[in-house]
Amino acid sequence: MPDLSRLITPRSVAIVGASPTLGALGNSVMRNLDRHGFSGAVHLINPKRSEIDGRPCLPSITDLPEGVDVAVLAIPGPAVLPAVRELAARKAGAAIIFSAGFAEGGDEGLAAQAEVARIARDHDMIVLGPNCLGLVNYAAGVPLTFIEAPVLATENKPAVAIVSQSGAMAVVLGTTLMAKDLALTLSVSTGNEAASGVEDYVEHLLGDSGTQAIAMIVEQFRQPARFLCLVERARDIGKPIVLLHPGTSSAARESAATHTGAMAGDWQLMKAKVTRAGAILVDSLEALGDVTELAVRAGKVRAGGTAVLTESGAFKALTLDLAEQIGLDLPPMSGATADALRGAIPDFIPVSNPMDLTAQALVDPDLYRRTLIPLLADDAFAALVFGIIQTDPATSSRKFLPITEAITALAPEKPIIFAGLDEGAEVPADYVTGLRAVGVTYFPSPDRAFRALRHLIRAAAQDHGSAPASPIRLDVPGGVVPEYAAKRLLGPVGLPFPPGGFAASLEEAVKIAGEIGYPIALKAQAAALSHKSDAGGVILSIADEASLEAAWERLYGNVAAYDSAIALDGAQVEAMGKRGVELIVGARNDPEWGPVILVGFGGVTAELLHDVRLLPIDLPREAIVAELRALKQGALLDGYRGSPALDVEAVAALIETLGRVLAGTPSIREIDLNPVIVFPRGEGVVALDALILAEQE
Amino acid sequence: MPDLSRLITPRSVAIVGASPTLGALGNSVMRNLDRHGFSGAVHLINPKRSEIDGRPCLPSITDLPEGVDVAVLAIPGPAVLPAVRELAARKAGAAIIFSAGFAEGGDEGLAAQAEVARIARDHDMIVLGPNCLGLVNYAAGVPLTFIEAPVLATENKPAVAIVSQSGAMAVVLGTTLMAKDLALTLSVSTGNEAASGVEDYVEHLLGDSGTQAIAMIVEQFRQPARFLCLVERARDIGKPIVLLHPGTSSAARESAATHTGAMAGDWQLMKAKVTRAGAILVDSLEALGDVTELAVRAGKVRAGGTAVLTESGAFKALTLDLAEQIGLDLPPMSGATADALRGAIPDFIPVSNPMDLTAQALVDPDLYRRTLIPLLADDAFAALVFGIIQTDPATSSRKFLPITEAITALAPEKPIIFAGLDEGAEVPADYVTGLRAVGVTYFPSPDRAFRALRHLIRAAAQDHGSAPASPIRLDVPGGVVPEYAAKRLLGPVGLPFPPGGFAASLEEAVKIAGEIGYPIALKAQAAALSHKSDAGGVILSIADEASLEAAWERLYGNVAAYDSAIALDGAQVEAMGKRGVELIVGARNDPEWGPVILVGFGGVTAELLHDVRLLPIDLPREAIVAELRALKQGALLDGYRGSPALDVEAVAALIETLGRVLAGTPSIREIDLNPVIVFPRGEGVVALDALILAEQE
Repeated sequence: MPDLSRLITPRSVAIVGASPTLGALGNSVMRNLDRHGFSGAVHLINPKRSEIDGRPCLPSITDLPEGVDVAVLAIPGPAVLPAVRELAARKAGAAIIFSAGFAEGGDEGLAAQAEVARIARDHDMIVLGPNCLGLVNYAAGVPLTFIEAPVLATENKPAVAIVSQSGAMAVVLGTTLMAKDLALTLSVSTGNEAASGVEDYVEHLLGDSGTQAIAMIVEQFRQPARFLCLVERARDIGKPIVLLHPGTSSAARESAATHTGAMAGDWQLMKAKVTRAGAILVDSLEALGDVTELAVRAGKVRAGGTAVLTESGAFKALTLDLAEQIGLDLPPMSGATADALRGAIPDFIPVSNPMDLTAQALVDPDLYRRTLIPLLADDAFAALVFGIIQTDPATSSRKFLPITEAITALAPEKPIIFAGLDEGAEVPADYVTGLRAVGVTYFPSPDRAFRALRHLIRAAAQDHGSAPASPIRLDVPGGVVPEYAAKRLLGPVGLPFPPGGFAASLEEAVKIAGEIGYPIALKAQAAALSHKSDAGGVILSIADEASLEAAWERLYGNVAAYDSAIALDGAQVEAMGKRGVELIVGARNDPEWGPVILVGFGGVTAELLHDVRLLPIDLPREAIVAELRALKQGALLDGYRGSPALDVEAVAALIETLGRVLAGTPSIREIDLNPVIVFPRGEGVVALDALILAEQE
Repeated sequence: MPDLSRLITPRSVAIVGASPTLGALGNSVMRNLDRHGFSGAVHLINPKRSEIDGRPCLPSITDLPEGVDVAVLAIPGPAVLPAVRELAARKAGAAIIFSAGFAEGGDEGLAAQAEVARIARDHDMIVLGPNCLGLVNYAAGVPLTFIEAPVLATENKPAVAIVSQSGAMAVVLGTTLMAKDLALTLSVSTGNEAASGVEDYVEHLLGDSGTQAIAMIVEQFRQPARFLCLVERARDIGKPIVLLHPGTSSAARESAATHTGAMAGDWQLMKAKVTRAGAILVDSLEALGDVTELAVRAGKVRAGGTAVLTESGAFKALTLDLAEQIGLDLPPMSGATADALRGAIPDFIPVSNPMDLTAQALVDPDLYRRTLIPLLADDAFAALVFGIIQTDPATSSRKFLPITEAITALAPEKPIIFAGLDEGAEVPADYVTGLRAVGVTYFPSPDRAFRALRHLIRAAAQDHGSAPASPIRLDVPGGVVPEYAAKRLLGPVGLPFPPGGFAASLEEAVKIAGEIGYPIALKAQAAALSHKSDAGGVILSIADEASLEAAWERLYGNVAAYDSAIALDGAQVEAMGKRGVELIVGARNDPEWGPVILVGFGGVTAELLHDVRLLPIDLPREAIVAELRALKQGALLDGYRGSPALDVEAVAALIETLGRVLAGTPSIREIDLNPVIVFPRGEGVVALDALILAEQE
């Protein structure tokens, strides 16, 4: 990928399809450049005109000087491909394609898009789009779009960038962020991403010191693995990435596919991966704006509790409900903090969290400052939220101003949020500006404040782990590896299976059974036999040698009757185990998102309730245990209603080992160990089955 | 309860604690009355002054003329009780008590509040408070509060009333509703509700033709049964009641108790009951304002689907996600509607729901009208939502105005909502006013629009049933009715129990066993033995008469060893049944909220997941079946993964019968039937146990 600077900070721009007609795309692009006072060369191209508004107009792309930085194609779809060819010949640095009808428009469009991509690759030309709204480099005053781009005052404002596949959503989000008094550096919409995608622009922005956070709207990542690396880099350099990604519903995934021509992905896997890497995933446009604003105003948020100061007992109760619902921790005011608060506030105000200051601050405006001091000093609180009744300009002046003064005096490092309880109250704009000037984020409703804060605190608490200590490299053949072979591979590296082994003949089976002792289970083995049970290929509770002989015959007979094409390798002979709690554990190396382990409770109920967790493979054991406890039925692990506590440590060890195998053996696509039986604490865990699916290396 | 008109529309007001000092409560009350131009008599009382601002001032309450309508007590807590006594003596119609420190302030305060209540009752005097902010009758211009009450222009605006226990929340909500350009009729805060509560004010407002909806914030209902009747009346007359009630968390319930001195109630039961009666329960201040606004602007909403018109493919995907998450139905555009749309819009716009109109309406503003026509005609759609990109005044003019024109031309009866996608966009206020004038509700974000609409559609879809056809009256003794006696009562009215009966002696047991056939179960019976199993009082799978003899002895021995004070009545002898799926079913006649039936899946998992539903007793069978299917594991009922479909009809019949028993026998507090075993379709259901708890009649 060539350096994007020629696209984003061009010295010269060509408008292909320049027009004197107000409202025409080419005219809008020209007017945008004028309004922003673009100082580079602007080449207008229109075969029907020699000049537009007194500026010379070239008849065709072939008349351009060589090496123009960006050409904006304000022309109909069918004219795009020839234009791209001509631009490549003129050594243009970049092209922006607005037109739709490419990958999302059937086979012909798909072919045209592929051709655009090929030309871009062959000529080191950057292409943005097709099916996009271009970009606006607000920081440098370069609008390359037909949407009216306002000129922004950006001094002393936190600055964010927008990277969106959807052009409409980029515009929508830009409007919202500007209304929050934030500066924008770059807003780019990538559309169908023929030859440059969101990953390219994020990478560029990681190197842009003016951009403090990146807000993204993405329907489908085309380079997931690369995106994860970028998110990790963003995390390391402290540049938050806030992401909105539709697709929790299958209807949305289908809609996205028809909208951009991209394939639908696995949303849950995306979520597990991007969150783990450090991105903040939100679920609405509102939250995208709110979290982005809080992230850049609050600076570095650390994990911890939240203190809430308010003026109403009923609101206190509402806050307790919401905090429980969204998982925001409101620790009690305790110890030295409680004592200090007791000394700072009148006796009739109970010390609690949330704390209801009543209307007392109206007669004692210094109350805010005195209350803040112990809360800022208490490490139990990572953030503070004021929930304030604003009412009208007169009332709000008696709250905004002393709170702003208190914060100015105390210069806190912790994020402080001001949430108005009464949305719509008339509050002078400079009160809000005053709060922002001292680093406070203002929210029009408390729920939005708490939800945004919860996102940032959760991201701060996210354990980013490290690669597993020692990857395990297995020599796995390609294709389906049946149970007995999978167990031979996985048993020696520490995965627990029942005692037993593979028997190619009845004699071998009798010998193994003699060693491990009856009763035993007999399971038919062949790579082609993926559903043993359906084929009658599993016979349980075989009590003695005579039964084993009969069972062996029956097993072969069942499978032959099921599918005469299957030739059994033999059978797995295993000891029958004791009862325990059933888990499902699977490992997967997704071609796009990489390795992940799925764990959940077994059985119909768990399946109905989607009670599973997706785990990265680099979690330390304590974090794996925490994930297991986070299952909906997680309480079962610790002994619920008289049942014994289960061996979660053994489950965590099994998952850790699976992760090391995935890390060391990239050819593995899937490992399936279902069911996994977990026993009471100290008694371990056992995987009853095993199946590996691997690529040919 | 006396007529509240003297309080709400008084002809004369006394201010006890009148004051010339700006900011003093009594002064603020006086200034509020002045600002609203209150035309009745105002009596000022202050022992230290003969006049205030040139108005005469009485030294004491005893100097008041007899029969003043309302006295506002702007005095400290300790002075309240004597003042209330004096007001009663002067035959005052009502008193408003602002002071705190009553029921929420310990035993002394509780006693003082009880005394206030007694005086009110004995003298037919209305008391509002204590611990409240009074009321504002905006419609008549009577502010009886110390909070600055604005004078409202109310012409041609939908009008709502606020009834809140919390005074702060009443003010907060008032600010928000006024900002939504709604008129307020009455805002009242009831505080500790010593002698008048939210129920009284709701009843008053049901008779107030000027009030179109009632928005409520309640921490604890003191008269639940009465409130339910009022909600039903409100529903019948088409006056929506929208309710915010904290208490989903135990922390909030505790907080509410300390805040108002009220007992914490059962939130889930409250929810089941008020929702069933027809109230709309919301979970945030934001939703309370949003739903109230939509309810009064939209008029009668019927159940049905929603059509969404928007301008962005990505937003379409976001909408599909949200709709699935919140349960908003977006039916496909089908049949005649799809054909008509196809004829109304350009070919490149796919017909779908949501429908992405792209930016086409910018060049073809009539597109909105043409698109609306088939959607308004299609009964599949109960409501329409526009999701519009506003950007700036120029852009918004090209969308708001043609949409407003189209709606004016079409005069739709269905609710139409306009949601701006880009919150914060600068939109001229008169564009929004213009939409409101044609009945459209404007939301600053689409998520809020969809959530508010979902509330109203769900309320419209709520089945309100009718009283069960024939209540069953049982002659139930007070106290604990043990299993055998409960089964003798409940079996004859149709509840299915296993074959068998009660045996007072071994001989009787043998006789019963002989009739029903072995194997049998033997269960110890005594009212004092509430946990049979713990006492070894249940012996299962008794195979023959000899075993029965031994078991009988063992049973008596076990119970004697468990608690020698328990004298068994005998034992229940029952046939062992086949396996099935375990449910829990309980009936409860709550002293506050009335009868309800709890049903869920049995077992540890269900308990962990709180997988239960609370059902009213007047549901028709189809609605009971729908409730069963709404359990988290409801799919199990219809045969999941090869298991057979279960006899949901038989479960519904059992629940219906329980409801008839509760309805006919009000002395019953609880009936417990756990577990209830449900068999495959056509094979019925059986309750293994039964226990009744009843009051002495």
